[in-house]
Amino acid sequence: MKIINICLIGFGNASKAFCKMLLEKNTDLQTIVGYEVKITAIATRSKGSLLNLNGIDLQAALECVSKNETLSGYSEDAVDLDTKALIKVSKADVLIELSALSIQDGQPAMSYIETAFDLKMHVITGNKGPIAWDFHRLKNIATENGLEFLYETTVMDGAPIFNMVKYTLPGCKVVSFKGILNSTTNFIIEEMEKGNTYESAVKEAQLRGFAEADPSLDVDGWDAAAKTAALANVLMDASLTPVEIARQGVGQMTIEEIEDARKVGKKIKLLCEGFVENGVVRGRVTPTLIPMTDLFATIDATSSVLAITTDLMGEVIMVEKNPEIEQTAYGIYSDLLTLLKSV
Amino acid sequence: MKIINICLIGFGNASKAFCKMLLEKNTDLQTIVGYEVKITAIATRSKGSLLNLNGIDLQAALECVSKNETLSGYSEDAVDLDTKALIKVSKADVLIELSALSIQDGQPAMSYIETAFDLKMHVITGNKGPIAWDFHRLKNIATENGLEFLYETTVMDGAPIFNMVKYTLPGCKVVSFKGILNSTTNFIIEEMEKGNTYESAVKEAQLRGFAEADPSLDVDGWDAAAKTAALANVLMDASLTPVEIARQGVGQMTIEEIEDARKVGKKIKLLCEGFVENGVVRGRVTPTLIPMTDLFATIDATSSVLAITTDLMGEVIMVEKNPEIEQTAYGIYSDLLTLLKSV
Repeated sequence: MKIINICLIGFGNASKAFCKMLLEKNTDLQTIVGYEVKITAIATRSKGSLLNLNGIDLQAALECVSKNETLSGYSEDAVDLDTKALIKVSKADVLIELSALSIQDGQPAMSYIETAFDLKMHVITGNKGPIAWDFHRLKNIATENGLEFLYETTVMDGAPIFNMVKYTLPGCKVVSFKGILNSTTNFIIEEMEKGNTYESAVKEAQLRGFAEADPSLDVDGWDAAAKTAALANVLMDASLTPVEIARQGVGQMTIEEIEDARKVGKKIKLLCEGFVENGVVRGRVTPTLIPMTDLFATIDATSSVLAITTDLMGEVIMVEKNPEIEQTAYGIYSDLLTLLKSV
Repeated sequence: MKIINICLIGFGNASKAFCKMLLEKNTDLQTIVGYEVKITAIATRSKGSLLNLNGIDLQAALECVSKNETLSGYSEDAVDLDTKALIKVSKADVLIELSALSIQDGQPAMSYIETAFDLKMHVITGNKGPIAWDFHRLKNIATENGLEFLYETTVMDGAPIFNMVKYTLPGCKVVSFKGILNSTTNFIIEEMEKGNTYESAVKEAQLRGFAEADPSLDVDGWDAAAKTAALANVLMDASLTPVEIARQGVGQMTIEEIEDARKVGKKIKLLCEGFVENGVVRGRVTPTLIPMTDLFATIDATSSVLAITTDLMGEVIMVEKNPEIEQTAYGIYSDLLTLLKSV
């Protein structure tokens, strides 16, 4: 049995769900790809870090963090190293990068990824920042070093939008796309459709765990802009960054506007679009009127949709319906399987 | 430059659109996969057959059949051989099987495919019959002989539903599916929603070229049942045939039923479903009430949808929007690219 060692950055909800999936699917993994998967290092921003070159006991780490909200109680493997230092000593074959996103510059995720490539590690990231800010440079470093760089989870969780284009639409060119890709704003608009104010809708989204304490990344359209840039960069070979996406959030939206839309048989959705204008790929995030009879009007709160228009295959639409955190975990797991099949 | 020779069965609309795509994409193909593609034989049921081991002039064949509605005017390469004999002398590497479908038994497509496998030819089929009637046996013959057997076009044209599950959802198990997969019935129901009678709706579908002169394959649900069996066989490892799918068509449907549905905020759609019941995979085709607010209610006339529910990735939905014959052609072309990348 071959062994693959993983260095895991971040131990938040998605990372923990991925670890649970790994524990459940350990036997499957060995059967499907012939590898025993070990996590040799876990780095977190504020919960301590672990290192064990023989493989961390994931079950114990998960229990520890759920009881104590920190890994430091998991004493044997606890180390006091910063993330880059931990990546270096982890002797891992693969970096799985699930750190908290800084939408302003894609850091620190990008520097972790570069550190990993320097050490000849493959990289899987669940972080849209690096794909939105500097996809081609990172991809080129990977290619030059014969390494894999996988990122299916960064848009629409594990719904395989990047891989659909890469593996199942050979010879097709994506000429445009449009999607509903931000759950928080989708939920807020729905709450306002029910007659709730913008403020109470935001509060409800925070209560349910969709929205952050500072909801501006979502409501100002930054998360949607980062996803739009990521899609444009990967699917349309653009070199856009989130600041270059024409962006309008939902912060100014009033119940009156939503009511006016309803009166003419329409809904408002925060639409993410990529298109070619005068030979240049552009991106746009805007609250848009959608007819009630349109498929996009049926995309509820946490569901998401991406419609891509291609030269040969016309329009193909993918919908992710009511995802939970397990679907984010699956995106990472699916990238891991893809990686293990290719190495 | 390596050469790949193709024997093409059928020269109807899909086949002709595929040949046009081949002519347009010839240079791309050579760049992408490093093969020059030649059609060495074309067999038709009633328009004559062609054979040229150096490659048939496709442009001339297309012009000939469009002018004369037969290939016999294309004299040099015209041959008088039955289809199986033609397959044998074609010296082709690949059989592309686009013959007219017999839903009753999957023939003659299946026997052509077996003939090709005997001759160690790879097979691409656009014909749902063989997948609906005897998928596993044919797939096993291919595997035992180290041959490819590809069939992406058989359900939802070139929308990559089979390849999505095969290539982009690794480690996932499909636990159920539901779809709207028959354009003719979808169109007929829509016409009836506008107040037209069943009879005039069928006539209109025939005028527009969706429905056959004998529309029973569509309206009695046989086409939908064959697609349901094909999906169950490939995606859920079932061994179902179209006759084993619980089947109800739209022939008995009245305008009153459609009107009653509308009054309670619903539409009727011919739903295709695959599911597990007492540990056994079952299939069902039934006119079903769908809430207006459901994504499935937005699937118009020739558009189609498939929702698959998986163990790890939850529910993922794919929609093919307003396909034309080019999207069927693309399905064949995409299988050809997949094949040429693998050989």
